[in-house]
Amino acid sequence: MTIDSDIMFETFLRMRAETVETRLRQLLGESPLSGEIARPGHLMAAMRHGVLNGGKRLRPFLVLESAALFDADGEAALRVATALECVHCYSLIHDDLPAMDDDDLRRGQPTVHKAFDEATAILAGDGLLTFAFDIIADEATPLPADRRAALVLALARAAGPGGMVGGQALDLDAEHNKPDETGIIKLQAMKTGALIRFACEAGAIVGGASADERERLAEFGSAIGLAFQLADDLLDLTADAETMGKATGKDAAAGKATLVSLHGPNWARSQLVGLVNQAHDLLEPFGERAIMLKAAASFVAERNS
Amino acid sequence: MTIDSDIMFETFLRMRAETVETRLRQLLGESPLSGEIARPGHLMAAMRHGVLNGGKRLRPFLVLESAALFDADGEAALRVATALECVHCYSLIHDDLPAMDDDDLRRGQPTVHKAFDEATAILAGDGLLTFAFDIIADEATPLPADRRAALVLALARAAGPGGMVGGQALDLDAEHNKPDETGIIKLQAMKTGALIRFACEAGAIVGGASADERERLAEFGSAIGLAFQLADDLLDLTADAETMGKATGKDAAAGKATLVSLHGPNWARSQLVGLVNQAHDLLEPFGERAIMLKAAASFVAERNS
Repeated sequence: MTIDSDIMFETFLRMRAETVETRLRQLLGESPLSGEIARPGHLMAAMRHGVLNGGKRLRPFLVLESAALFDADGEAALRVATALECVHCYSLIHDDLPAMDDDDLRRGQPTVHKAFDEATAILAGDGLLTFAFDIIADEATPLPADRRAALVLALARAAGPGGMVGGQALDLDAEHNKPDETGIIKLQAMKTGALIRFACEAGAIVGGASADERERLAEFGSAIGLAFQLADDLLDLTADAETMGKATGKDAAAGKATLVSLHGPNWARSQLVGLVNQAHDLLEPFGERAIMLKAAASFVAERNS
Repeated sequence: MTIDSDIMFETFLRMRAETVETRLRQLLGESPLSGEIARPGHLMAAMRHGVLNGGKRLRPFLVLESAALFDADGEAALRVATALECVHCYSLIHDDLPAMDDDDLRRGQPTVHKAFDEATAILAGDGLLTFAFDIIADEATPLPADRRAALVLALARAAGPGGMVGGQALDLDAEHNKPDETGIIKLQAMKTGALIRFACEAGAIVGGASADERERLAEFGSAIGLAFQLADDLLDLTADAETMGKATGKDAAAGKATLVSLHGPNWARSQLVGLVNQAHDLLEPFGERAIMLKAAASFVAERNS
């Protein structure tokens, strides 16, 4: 009997997600760490609400599988993966705020400012972002200090004003000043691409990869980041809200141009094929060991929720 | 002719502030750093608006002077000082938001969400917080990687859910659940104390101080953090809005208990004398070299704006 490789990948992704979720739950507990004065229960509950939401944990998966290519320390990779997920979830909490996208639901659950209040949601996001750097820099992440510092720097650069936060700012601006194709590509590379690129590059840093290998993983990350966004734009156009667990058709409603709205779904589907091929080619030097990362690239391009 | 030592200190503080401001302006420019895709002009302008506001730069001053005790690298100390100021200013931007303190003015100028808009203010704060860790972790901060990692960790812990952000969360909660004296002390040690403590400890880390010296500087920071908050509460009770450049009497209006409202201004003034003496005693081992830090302790306790 042949087992369906998609089902096999999704099962493996879910297993990894459980490992990440367990660690996130533990890290976001209420016992203060050394040097912390106290962890207010209400704030920690809001942080957990924003993080422990049944996400697919795609970015942590990419960190873990990229790290595995280089026989990296598993505990170090897991901590970096959880830190990245904290950054991703902080960005969702702030993005959902009334002043930003004003979303009431995320994965079918009330967003943090709905379940708590706006002020608590702002602080929960701030707390998660700050804590992400704590997790990486801590000596409990069993890596030489130069790698911990390199990871902090790469994450800050991917998430900061020249990366994700900058992309969110461009996205706000796009409602008034419609970007052209080049502008859309830049916006998306920053808003969603930078963190996915970091996920793959981070595995290489954790594993002490060479500069060439690190660049190769980063390029792999860029390719699937692009694929992720194209698939997202396709889904926004074609899926219904129930499947997605959040509002769809929002781009069109907001008058936001995407590459899919410019070029149409068929163009997007053919781009996706090209990006997956490119991503797979980048992993050729790693042979069979890269099979889960290759499957991740296909999964990202073909996902339907 | 004798020169008034208060005037001498304030002149020195202003000179240091100019150095810090120049560097902040340079770091918050619009040319992307390596690994950044682009720095959106609007976002960077909002970040600069929140940072380049003529602040006294007390926290950077404490970093620089603490570092000088240990003959630390001046460039490294300056970069860490600017990173800390980015964290302080991000916290003010988010604190001023309508969902938080809802302040229209800061130092007599429109707050970031007034000068720009709420969404941009949220992102400007997020960008500054993220960039602070970039500044420290970057190899452009000429320190061994273990010190850069230690600084990232100490800053994240001081600013995160067990420090400043946690203190802000407790402060929100205090409007509904009045804290007792122990609760007020904890809240203030987290909300304002943790970052001032970090400022002094950071200088010791930059300078490669021993664990004992690092702890001594951290304790000095805690003492002046307490003094800072007592002086602030006294000012809120007694100063007028024009001197402060922001609304005063807000604590009483919000029904917020402070140690000063519990024990009265005379008690607070005598506490301040005790804290300054304690702070000065902690610096005895450093002899005359600590004179500017001692002056800073007195300045914090006696400031009238």
